[in-house]
Parts: sequence; C-alpha cells; structure tokens
Amino acid sequence: MPCRALPETEDWSGMYIDLNADVAESFGRWSLGEDDALIPYLTSVNVACGFHAGDPLTIRRVVGRAVEHRVAIGAQVSYPDLVGFGRRAMDLAPDELEADVLYQIGGLDALARAAGDRVSYVKPHGALYHRVLTDPAQAAAMVRAIAAWTDPLAVLTMAGGELASQAAVAGLRVVAEGYADRGYLPDGRLVPRGQPGALLTEPGDAAEQAVRLAGAGEVESLCLHGDTPGAPLIASAVRAALVAAGHEVVRFA
Amino acid sequence: MPCRALPETEDWSGMYIDLNADVAESFGRWSLGEDDALIPYLTSVNVACGFHAGDPLTIRRVVGRAVEHRVAIGAQVSYPDLVGFGRRAMDLAPDELEADVLYQIGGLDALARAAGDRVSYVKPHGALYHRVLTDPAQAAAMVRAIAAWTDPLAVLTMAGGELASQAAVAGLRVVAEGYADRGYLPDGRLVPRGQPGALLTEPGDAAEQAVRLAGAGEVESLCLHGDTPGAPLIASAVRAALVAAGHEVVRFA
Amino acid sequence: MPCRALPETEDWSGMYIDLNADVAESFGRWSLGEDDALIPYLTSVNVACGFHAGDPLTIRRVVGRAVEHRVAIGAQVSYPDLVGFGRRAMDLAPDELEADVLYQIGGLDALARAAGDRVSYVKPHGALYHRVLTDPAQAAAMVRAIAAWTDPLAVLTMAGGELASQAAVAGLRVVAEGYADRGYLPDGRLVPRGQPGALLTEPGDAAEQAVRLAGAGEVESLCLHGDTPGAPLIASAVRAALVAAGHEVVRFA
Amino acid sequence: MPCRALPETEDWSGMYIDLNADVAESFGRWSLGEDDALIPYLTSVNVACGFHAGDPLTIRRVVGRAVEHRVAIGAQVSYPDLVGFGRRAMDLAPDELEADVLYQIGGLDALARAAGDRVSYVKPHGALYHRVLTDPAQAAAMVRAIAAWTDPLAVLTMAGGELASQAAVAGLRVVAEGYADRGYLPDGRLVPRGQPGALLTEPGDAAEQAVRLAGAGEVESLCLHGDTPGAPLIASAVRAALVAAGHEVVRFA
Repeated sequence: MPCRALPETEDWSGMYIDLNADVAESFGRWSLGEDDALIPYLTSVNVACGFHAGDPLTIRRVVGRAVEHRVAIGAQVSYPDLVGFGRRAMDLAPDELEADVLYQIGGLDALARAAGDRVSYVKPHGALYHRVLTDPAQAAAMVRAIAAWTDPLAVLTMAGGELASQAAVAGLRVVAEGYADRGYLPDGRLVPRGQPGALLTEPGDAAEQAVRLAGAGEVESLCLHGDTPGAPLIASAVRAALVAAGHEVVRFA
Repeated sequence: MPCRALPETEDWSGMYIDLNADVAESFGRWSLGEDDALIPYLTSVNVACGFHAGDPLTIRRVVGRAVEHRVAIGAQVSYPDLVGFGRRAMDLAPDELEADVLYQIGGLDALARAAGDRVSYVKPHGALYHRVLTDPAQAAAMVRAIAAWTDPLAVLTMAGGELASQAAVAGLRVVAEGYADRGYLPDGRLVPRGQPGALLTEPGDAAEQAVRLAGAGEVESLCLHGDTPGAPLIASAVRAALVAAGHEVVRFA
Repeated sequence: MPCRALPETEDWSGMYIDLNADVAESFGRWSLGEDDALIPYLTSVNVACGFHAGDPLTIRRVVGRAVEHRVAIGAQVSYPDLVGFGRRAMDLAPDELEADVLYQIGGLDALARAAGDRVSYVKPHGALYHRVLTDPAQAAAMVRAIAAWTDPLAVLTMAGGELASQAAVAGLRVVAEGYADRGYLPDGRLVPRGQPGALLTEPGDAAEQAVRLAGAGEVESLCLHGDTPGAPLIASAVRAALVAAGHEVVRFA
Repeated sequence: MPCRALPETEDWSGMYIDLNADVAESFGRWSLGEDDALIPYLTSVNVACGFHAGDPLTIRRVVGRAVEHRVAIGAQVSYPDLVGFGRRAMDLAPDELEADVLYQIGGLDALARAAGDRVSYVKPHGALYHRVLTDPAQAAAMVRAIAAWTDPLAVLTMAGGELASQAAVAGLRVVAEGYADRGYLPDGRLVPRGQPGALLTEPGDAAEQAVRLAGAGEVESLCLHGDTPGAPLIASAVRAALVAAGHEVVRFA
C-alpha cells in the first residue's frame, strides 16, 4: 500500500519517508520527463501549474495518474516565465507574487478535484524556490497566499530557509526535504548545478544517499529529479533501498 | 439590500432581475473599464480569468470589491488569447477546452475564496461565447468542465443555444440573459458590432430596453458592457429604471 | 558542395531538387527534433519564428548551424499559439495576420543576419499552412506581408492553393513542395494524420517516394518531418536515393 | 521641417536637441498613451517591440505615423514580461538577452521597412534600462546584440552607465538623454518614482526643465513620458520653449 498518509501526530523521524518529484512539466507539444513511469514509485508529486510549465490538459492527465496511484498532489508554483522555465529570478512585488501563487494553486486544484483529489501542499519551483530561502518579502508573500487558501496546505521546502521559518510562524505545516540525487558539499549545501557531482545519475549512488538521508532523520521527504534520464530507474532503486533499510515509504500529506 | 440571492425555487419571471457585466478585464499596466465605479450597480460580475484578460492581482482586487458589495462572482472563461482579447475563434480540441475551463474556474475561485466568497457561475467570453451557441462539441466540453467542478455552478448564456440546451440536459442551472445596451434586430438577434445601433450608449435608451426585456419575463439577467464609456452612468440609469418599473434587482446566484 | 543555389533561370524539373524540414521548434527548456543531426542532409530549413515555437536563443543556434552548412533559411510563420503549437485554426483579421507575419520574418532575419545570412523564403506552419490553401483573405494577408518585405522572398507551399495562386499574381516566386514522408491518397491528397499510412517512418519508403516525386518533376522541394523519430536517418536515405537516381540536391533559394 | 537629421559631425551642444518618448505601448484591446497626438511634437520615438507591450499591428500603425512625421524610429527593447510591463528585473543569461534584443530589433525593423523607414537606434525599457546602467554582463550582451545588427544603430541611454561606456568602447554611437518631465535630485539622480516630485505634470515645469537641460549642453535628447495624462500638451509646451530659447529641435539619428 504505497500511499498511506502518515498521521501528523506520529513520530516521523527515522522510520517514515516520503518521495517527491516534479511532474507535469510538459507543455503542449513539448514533452519533458517520464511522468507515467515515475509516478508509481513516488508518494508525492509537485505538479507544475502553468506558469513555468504544465498546460491544463497536461496537468489533468498527470493528476489523473497521481490519483490512480494515490500519490499526494502538491502545487509546484513558479514565476510566470515559460521560456525561462521559471529558472530566472524575477523581482515580483509581494502582492503580485501572492496573487500569482493563489491563482496557480486554484488552477491546479480545479483539475485535481475533477480527478477526485485535492491539492495537499505547495512547493516553490526553480528561481522562486531559491529566492524564498533568503528573501523575507517574497517568502512572506508565499506564506500569505498559502494561508489564504481555505484548506490547510503543507509547505515542502529545505529546512532553515526564510520560507520554512515564516511558514512555521504562521502555523503552517512545514515538511523538510533532502535531495536523493543531488550531490552535497561537506558543509551540507548542494553542489551547484554545472559542477562535477551536482547530479547523481547512478541509481546505486542515489539509493545510497537516500538511505543515509532518511536514516539521519532530519528530512521527511526526499526529492528526485524527474527530468534526469532514467529517472524511473533511479526512483525504483531509491524506493527499494529505503524499504530494505527498514523505512516505510509513505506520503506526508 | 442590493444583493439578496434569489432562491431558485421562487418564481423569477417579471419581478426579479439580475444585472451582470464583465469586469477584471485590465491586465498588468493596462487598464480597461471602470470596475470600481460599476460594481455597486451590479448584482453579478463576470470576472476575467487570465486567458483573455485579468492577471491574478487585478482579479484579486476586483473580487475584493465584488465581495464588499455582495455581488455574485462568475468565471468569464475564454480561449487563451491575450493579444486577441479572446475575440478570435480558435479550434480547440474538446479535451483542451475542458481542461482550460476548469483551470480558469479554479484560478478565479482561489482568489474569490481568499476574499471570502466562491465562484457561483460560469459565462463564456467573446469568441467562445459565440462558438458554444452553435458548436455542439465545444458546448459539450464546457458542460463537462462545469459539471466536473465539485460545487454546483450556474451557466449564464443566451437562451436557445447549444450551451443552454446541453447544460440543461446535464442538470446544470441555466440562466438566460439579454443585453440592456446592445441593439436588437426585429428577429431577436443582436445588431452586429460595427453596424449602426449595435451599442446603446445613451443611458436612457439602455434603461428603456432593460425595462422592456425585464418586463417580457424571458431573461433572468441583463448584461451591460463595462467597457462602454460612461458604463457606470448607464448602469445607474438601468438599475433605477428597473426599480421604478417594479422589479427587484437581485443576484441570481 | 551540398548547398549550391540554383539560378532561377535554369530548367529545374526532373534534375534538381531541394530538401526542406522544420527546425528550431524547441522552446526554452523543451527540446524537439534533432536539428543538429538533420540539417547537414537538408538544403532549406523552415525556422520557427517564436509564435508557435522557437525562442530567440534557440533560433540563433539553429541559424548558426544552417549557415555553417550553407542551407537556405526560411521563415516558418505561424499563428500566435505556443500551447497549441500553431496547430489550431484561428480567425485572425487580415491586418493582424499581415503584421504578425512581417514581425516574425523580421525577428528571424535579425538572427540570420547576425549569423551571416538572410531569410530567403517564407513557409506557413500548421493550421496557418492549411488555412491559406483555401482562405482567400488570409492568403492575401500573407502575400501582402511577404511583398512588403523589402527583399524578394520566395513562398514555399503546396501547388494549387490560394497562397500559391495569389503569390504568383503578386509576382512572388512560388516554390511547390511535396512530402517525402507523408502518405498520399490516390487522388493526390495527403493521408490525414491519425490514419494508417499518414506518416512514412521507414527510410526506404520515404526514399522511394522522394525519388518518385522528384522524377515526376512537379515539385521543386521535398519536405521531411524533423520531429519524426529517426528523422536524420530518413533524410540521409532520401538524399542518397535522390542522388543515386541522378538528381542534384540543391537549395532553391 | 521638424525632423531634419543632424549630421554626426556637427557640434551638437547647446544648439540642437532631440525629443524622444515611448510609443506603441498599447497591446491588442488595451490602449495606452496618446501616440497619434504626441508624435508630431517628437523627433524620435522609442517603439515597444512586443516583449513588454506593442503587438505587431499596434507597432505597424505607430511606425506608419512616425514615418508620416519623419520621426526617427528606435527599438525600445525589454525583458519578456507582458504582465509586468517589463518593469520587473529578470536574471536573463547574457546569451538569452543578446538573442532577445536582436529578435526585437528585427521584428520592429520589418514593420518599419514596410512603412518606408528603418530602425535607427536602440533604447532599453524599464527594468532592463536600469539594469544595464550597472550590470556589466547584461550591458555587454546588449552591446553585442546591437553590434551584430548589420546596419549601424545608435544607443540612447543615460550618460555614465555601463551601457554607455561599453557601447562607446565597441564603437557604437551613444546618445545621452535627460528627462524633461522627471524631477532631479541635487546630486543629479532622478527622484524615485512614488516620491513627491518624481513626475513633472505641469507643462510649464517640464518646459522650464527642458530648456535648462538643453542649455547645459550635456544631453543630446530629452525624454518625455508618453503615458503621463496630457502628454501631448506637455510635449507641445516643451518643444515651443526649446525653440523660443534658440534651440533647433532635430532628430539625432
């Protein structure tokens, strides 16, 4: 039963672990990622909401697949930048960002509802992900947007950033994530993209790192990159290694 | 009390009438219409959802104003065509249109919820409005999208078209509208835009036509064009004339 | 010398043949087609101009590759519809279409000039391609746009359509094309997409058809589909077969 | 004869002055500025190129008006951000920016050629304008793009910034501009928007400042804001005051 949701009250550390990845990052004629093959190994999917990727029809198909596998649906919100794939920092005013985030959650939620589920959490994408780790004004705008949604939504992010701390203060559930397939520096930061070792493309390496991170008990979810070639194989290896190491792979939301 | 919602079970004809107009048709730096001045005279607003007009921040401000005046919020869904303002017919596949409509309803609903209300109805915009009067496949796609929304939504459209008949068959509430400020031909069709008499710009003319249409009892709502210069004046005159003629101006949803 | 341009005055039929394909149909993060592998086999490339695909950076890279291989650069102009990839018919007003076509030619030409060449011809894409075969108003708008460009541009299209006949009347050079890798019906029309035999995916089949079409002498150019899996292999086989059959494969412009 | 172009070799300071303003900043249904009334008072127009404003049909109409009044046509290039009107800083990679600038120049030039003229200069818009005053990488990308255009183009910008210095090093003509209708601080910087005195809306104030700036001989062009209410009146007053003060108002390019 891959997708039992863990009650928030249970002790999570060391035993339970969630697996998330970005999905629905195709756009019209352009295909990206192997969502259909990847989703069965995941417990949570960060669904693109149309601002950096993910047209409504793509979203609809992917959330249908997510519901079929009882995977938690998260809103992968972004700056409005299709050609830049949401990877270019933008100086949005806080009220612009707040409205943009709400709109994206709502657009996705409509398609999730039509498929029989709801949005359960929010994860920022790309340049926005990095910006809200350190920018108090944009982090606050995101928190206001998430808090304005009338159902409770968790926030999936790295521990220790502005978004995590402001979301916690606002009473939102914060879920800390680590990266199964990104290299880490000795100081705990990620190896920057473009440098050697930034991406772990060997399933065995990712599986080993996933077991280490899950065992350390500091994260509730592990992120895999859906656009890595062979992502489903990596996900399969990671999941098997986590189970073999005694973890239960369950959705956090 | 301008915005009492009429129970669906009451007899509507001849006594009650709703006043609707398009709003939130600005986009970023570009301003269109006098929403703030117009909304107090209305009972329902067709809010642009971002595909032909209406960025999220614009939408948020306008739904805030709508909630303040207890006006019903409708999703004015459109083809994805900003530069064409949704006025150019497009051959969307039915599943594309269905997903696009759901996404737009959801995006708007998120902002409506943050303002304390919900989307109550759907009205197609521009080229889509005209297409679903006669195109069974696109009308069916719209009906499927509206039916897939988990709360009941009314459909605001002209009587007698494909959308109205298919929506009724699907069990959706259909609200028939007439045009207070568009000229009618003797056969009941609208005077085409660009021809003399297409638009009634004199408040007195629109008020007279509104009273006539409301009195005939064939429509539940009257549409005003928010982008006509002096639209608030026209709306004020129309509303006053309807009240003077014994109608109660109430929102239909 | 793959890309000698044929003087317009020479007799073309039966001996010379051009090979064209769509390129630059990636967009930002999304990759489509194998342009780098395909271009060396071609003599003309239909470069997406940003309206259905082809961001400026993608265009720049592709025209650089085209110049390197001395391949003729054509503007593959489209309706403005990224999410629909220009494949959905749109009712543009003639003056809108005329301005859109000029803008796209100019945007591409700037990048072609920076790479050391110029736009030589125009070919409509997708839904626009089909529309201007039969719609006199849209065909006329395209012809006006091409004629308004201050350098002479050829028009690449199917023989017998509105675009071909109006372009000829306007004094533009019309280049007739056939499809090496699309199936033909007995009456000369293409097998509709989605039906069996619509696409020839075996290199041998496409090569055989290419030789037949070139030998018939009714077309000056043969189109290959760059987004077919294995397109470079097909192009290689087609080109070799044409040469073996005694044709000289040269750019028409 | 309002639009005699000044030979570059003549001594400019103190006698000749150019008047520029942003135009073509409408977009489809949305109208902004009073271009038709404003253009007769100007000698140079910064034409939006479609990335922050200015659809092709709008551009075409405005360049037609510019040609009619023999006003110099400049490319007002921008980040790709319609909803933010190009006013939000974006971290474009240099090669992205370079390709974007070339594409915009080319798109505009095609419409200018169809109207009988050519693009003569480039002026960055909004957030890009400010970024290239201080960001060496983005300034260098702009300079490379402008230098890659095969005709010589001037660069219109504030004196003393990165763009001005890098453009001069690259051998481009740099034209320094001041603001007739923006308030200046004692240290020579502009009063930030949103603060009192940021915008001079009285024609007399703008005219007085224009005469002062032109007399100081440090700028070759004065910028007016086309979207200020009453912009044509301000432009008329500025131009009359400059002429009365003994300046010849001529286009710089």
